[in-house]
Amino acid sequence: MSEVIYSGKTKDIYQGAEENQLVLKFKDDVTGVDGVFDPGANQVGLSIEGVGQVGLRLTKYFYSKLNEAGYPTHFVDADIENNTMTVRKAQVFGKGLEVITRFKATGSFVRRYGDYVTEGTPLNAYVEVTLKDDDREDPYITKDALALLDIMNGDQYEELVATTKEIASFVRDDIAAHGLEVFDIKLEFGFDAVTGKVILIDEISGGNMRVFDNGEYVLPLNLINYFPEA
Amino acid sequence: MSEVIYSGKTKDIYQGAEENQLVLKFKDDVTGVDGVFDPGANQVGLSIEGVGQVGLRLTKYFYSKLNEAGYPTHFVDADIENNTMTVRKAQVFGKGLEVITRFKATGSFVRRYGDYVTEGTPLNAYVEVTLKDDDREDPYITKDALALLDIMNGDQYEELVATTKEIASFVRDDIAAHGLEVFDIKLEFGFDAVTGKVILIDEISGGNMRVFDNGEYVLPLNLINYFPEA
Repeated sequence: MSEVIYSGKTKDIYQGAEENQLVLKFKDDVTGVDGVFDPGANQVGLSIEGVGQVGLRLTKYFYSKLNEAGYPTHFVDADIENNTMTVRKAQVFGKGLEVITRFKATGSFVRRYGDYVTEGTPLNAYVEVTLKDDDREDPYITKDALALLDIMNGDQYEELVATTKEIASFVRDDIAAHGLEVFDIKLEFGFDAVTGKVILIDEISGGNMRVFDNGEYVLPLNLINYFPEA
Repeated sequence: MSEVIYSGKTKDIYQGAEENQLVLKFKDDVTGVDGVFDPGANQVGLSIEGVGQVGLRLTKYFYSKLNEAGYPTHFVDADIENNTMTVRKAQVFGKGLEVITRFKATGSFVRRYGDYVTEGTPLNAYVEVTLKDDDREDPYITKDALALLDIMNGDQYEELVATTKEIASFVRDDIAAHGLEVFDIKLEFGFDAVTGKVILIDEISGGNMRVFDNGEYVLPLNLINYFPEA
């Protein structure tokens, strides 16, 4: 493989065989604090053998289904044995955003709005956006502020929210068919380097969502156990 | 005066002479932490003689001007000697909101979005909303979440933002005429108990805004010094 272009917390990135493609190598490092795995954390906390491959297997599973269903994603193909995924190059919004879809209240939503909701309150696929900014703990940002900071305009925002709800609901339904309930899911988007269209980027695995099995939280690394076909 | 209906951090509230009015008594207690005055703090930190009266003088000054200009507010009149203000009764949105207008970046805006702005970046009267919730440190909330939590619908939100920008700009212009620059200002709104219309409530004084004199921050309690007519 070519030289590493960028070494992230959980992935290394290489130039792909084609000019407009990249190869993502899934590492066994996971984010966490004090040696405890936490997908929401901004620092690498520990290394767990096989975790990169598990993330890639789920990502390949969901992205293949999304591509088949006609959703625009960066996914091209995956090599499970080598822990790599080939993707289309994309340019992120601003310095990167995370787009969260909430089906039921949990986590920071309850911590912020606990005066109005309790754990599990249905939220009707409410979408909110955070800036990717480790130093500032990924702050939430409104539609108006995204326009103000020249990150995206109002029309782009509304389109992004609509696309996010569709994709998140598609994934939620697939996971529901495996007997699990998704409370929330975090996605990332970027502009396709060739077409300029907004496409889904990064990965989709246990670390991107909060999933429950009959009311019991499913640890991110255990999600794969429900997907023997992945 | 009648019995106290509610004793707040910086004001006591009494039933007014008329059924649809309240009397607010401005106290000398100010919010702060560890004995240091901080208008953004959620706890009473210390007591400063005369501070209630100073807040009332500025509030009377701004509200009188706003009423004259035709903006809907809860202000009826003020009794400076007795530190009291008579207001129309109003019902807050949800359990209360604060509406912040930002003319230039400072404070939490820079702490959150410092990857995109620096202190003093013009923000074109950007409006954002927080829930009043001391226990949760007044969390920010989006238009969509306000609708989701049944606090206000989308049309009410857009109207509130437009009204807020007008009032904040009116106050900013008045303060500019006194040689000062307003970076941001926090307002509160409620539904008039009689008409049901959205009106400006609470107070407007140094603690509601960040003001600069030739680039130097003006301490909230010093704002009155620029308003000898108040």
